[in-house]
Amino acid sequence: MRRLSTQDQNFKQVFADLLAFATVNDPELLSTVDQIISDVRQYGDAHVLKLTQQFDRHPAHQFSELELSQAELKAAFEGLNTEVRQALELAAKRIRSFHEAQKQTGWTYVDDLGNTLGQKVTPLDRVGIYVPGGLASYPSSVLMNALPAHVAGVTEIIMVVPAPNGELNPLVLAAAYLAGVHRVFTIGGAQAVAALAYGTETVPSVDKITGPGNRFVAAAKRAVFGQCGIDMIAGPSEILVYAEGDNDPKWIAMDLLSQAEHDTVAQAIFITPDEDFLNAVAEAIEAHLTVLPKAEIAKTSIQNRGALVLVKDRTEAIDLINQVAPEHLQLCVDDAQAMSEQIRHAGAIFMGRYTPEAIGDYCAGPNHVLPTSGTARFSSPLGVYDFQKRSSLIMCSQEGVKPLAQAADILALEENLEAHARSARYRYQV
Amino acid sequence: MRRLSTQDQNFKQVFADLLAFATVNDPELLSTVDQIISDVRQYGDAHVLKLTQQFDRHPAHQFSELELSQAELKAAFEGLNTEVRQALELAAKRIRSFHEAQKQTGWTYVDDLGNTLGQKVTPLDRVGIYVPGGLASYPSSVLMNALPAHVAGVTEIIMVVPAPNGELNPLVLAAAYLAGVHRVFTIGGAQAVAALAYGTETVPSVDKITGPGNRFVAAAKRAVFGQCGIDMIAGPSEILVYAEGDNDPKWIAMDLLSQAEHDTVAQAIFITPDEDFLNAVAEAIEAHLTVLPKAEIAKTSIQNRGALVLVKDRTEAIDLINQVAPEHLQLCVDDAQAMSEQIRHAGAIFMGRYTPEAIGDYCAGPNHVLPTSGTARFSSPLGVYDFQKRSSLIMCSQEGVKPLAQAADILALEENLEAHARSARYRYQV
Repeated sequence: MRRLSTQDQNFKQVFADLLAFATVNDPELLSTVDQIISDVRQYGDAHVLKLTQQFDRHPAHQFSELELSQAELKAAFEGLNTEVRQALELAAKRIRSFHEAQKQTGWTYVDDLGNTLGQKVTPLDRVGIYVPGGLASYPSSVLMNALPAHVAGVTEIIMVVPAPNGELNPLVLAAAYLAGVHRVFTIGGAQAVAALAYGTETVPSVDKITGPGNRFVAAAKRAVFGQCGIDMIAGPSEILVYAEGDNDPKWIAMDLLSQAEHDTVAQAIFITPDEDFLNAVAEAIEAHLTVLPKAEIAKTSIQNRGALVLVKDRTEAIDLINQVAPEHLQLCVDDAQAMSEQIRHAGAIFMGRYTPEAIGDYCAGPNHVLPTSGTARFSSPLGVYDFQKRSSLIMCSQEGVKPLAQAADILALEENLEAHARSARYRYQV
Repeated sequence: MRRLSTQDQNFKQVFADLLAFATVNDPELLSTVDQIISDVRQYGDAHVLKLTQQFDRHPAHQFSELELSQAELKAAFEGLNTEVRQALELAAKRIRSFHEAQKQTGWTYVDDLGNTLGQKVTPLDRVGIYVPGGLASYPSSVLMNALPAHVAGVTEIIMVVPAPNGELNPLVLAAAYLAGVHRVFTIGGAQAVAALAYGTETVPSVDKITGPGNRFVAAAKRAVFGQCGIDMIAGPSEILVYAEGDNDPKWIAMDLLSQAEHDTVAQAIFITPDEDFLNAVAEAIEAHLTVLPKAEIAKTSIQNRGALVLVKDRTEAIDLINQVAPEHLQLCVDDAQAMSEQIRHAGAIFMGRYTPEAIGDYCAGPNHVLPTSGTARFSSPLGVYDFQKRSSLIMCSQEGVKPLAQAADILALEENLEAHARSARYRYQV
């Protein structure tokens, strides 16, 4: 595994290169996706069915076979064994409860002139959540996308999940049942995104699409942005762990590998000022790799994108962390809360030795859909606020409007907008 | 001006067609913009200077001439006449005060297991605001973009504004001074967006770009999304006014024209259940058009995209309003606040007869950067929240983590993520 030290002569450049991850901008991909979107807009259900048969080898003969009933979702939930059902219920309960705390409400106030100003908060009417099928079919993602929408008060939650060869993970359906998803279509790819954005005879058009997907899904989401909202374009998963020794190196090593096992381009970075501890973690990683079923994926990830970074002190570490703006940050130190106050950019901060990132993926409560590739510099975890929006409220009184209308009149004339000026003038020259 | 009635046989289709507005997706435009971005990334200042000389006919010989000093901004402010300065100060004071109310703060709580969960809120480090130059150079837009960033606590606000032939509107510079903008570059177009997103030798890279612009700017913002954040892709301005008679038709007509004068593709829609009043407003529009300097623009807008819509009753009107999701909504009725509660989608709601949309453009307090083209279904006015982001906080106690780690272990195994399971398991099998 790559070892770096901030004392290396070329450290800055090497570290910057390590973080660089170009998102796919393949013109051929974009044109394929544009064609799919345009065909779905034109031919609706028929084209979505055709592509689903073609790409997913789905055995359906008509579009109606691509919708699941609530009874099927319920049956999947009731078919779970007790241990799994209870774990899923605990996760749902905790996710719901954390997200309740995020819910925003409107406000108004009366200014010194007697005018009322405020902000109204309303939920989106209808949203679509994209759940990947096949290998990366995660029931936890169903909960993490659907529950915030539910808490926000979204009227209708439509889920799409591809079913390769017509096969589905029952736990994904059980999670949809538990999270109160209203309709489920077993479609995926750019065709599912297009159907959700523009609607077809059967699939209703939604106001926003959230959830992860492959590069076709990501490209399609970017292309329909504006027609509906989207959450974000997610990159590969990342973790950054900071420790100062006084930790079990096996724990830290496994925490790093829990991201590395996701994807060959996932990124695990360990930062410490303690060289002996750095060596111990490196050894523990090697040892763990001999027992993990996904060792090959993890190894590639670690080799290509991972790093063990030796720093002089905590101050240097904090600067690096703020430069990375990591999706997941573990601060495995005694005074993690104090240290977290100096972190300006991170998707989620896991504090102390008893808070492994993995519990955040499932059941800690906060969302596991987080900004990747440094986008925590300007964006937030998926949340209830993604399913709510605001309207400004303005109500002037007959007297209170006068000074405002007069100022608007003056400024509108400076901008050469005569109708604006006159519209304002009517209200103070009464 | 087009007249519609919900009783018309083909009303639904005609009304839907009226609202349809395809955003430009011209492949030639996109490839021009991609080339500009790639050249700015490669050649930096030199290329931005070259394009600024070429497109804006700017007389600068070196890049340093494209940056304005704080002294120049201050001089512009001090050169204002008293009336204009006071109007601008009133606007800034009210915008700042409304946006203070939007500022979000973090929170934490301790769950029933003794684990601490929360949400940290931090400002963006550095943002770029795009201010159009030339004809549509609006000082009000400087205030509306810079003040929310300032209130959020953004460390550095970089403004770009093109100066065709080297000329600038002094009021734009005065507004930048008043709003606390840190640096101003007189550059514009896709080259300015590229410089802000990727940085050059002189222009620092920013975390988010906000503000309106022409189609090159819009296409460039979309292209750099992901490298940095963007606010939204704005479409033409719109207003929807609802009244039930008992209003001065001249006022309503001028309010409609205040949007129509912006742009030939701006949209002004009037809805009423009172046919006589509808006729009176139509006549007043014709009369006003004879006196407005921008009558030609307004006329084209009204003819091509405007409509006077007769409804049966208020219930029908509310359904239409929610379908339109207008950028600006005026409810010119006695019980506007009660009516507003039934509005699910609108950028800003102006209530009563003494609240013309024009005061919202300048000095009511709420932002004038609002979601257009029906995007109020899923997005919000520009606000302080656009310049803040959140990080999730999780800190488990040694005992409190146990039930969570156990559930994560079970669910991770269901998702075939062994390292996740083991990372969690270490914490409950202590």
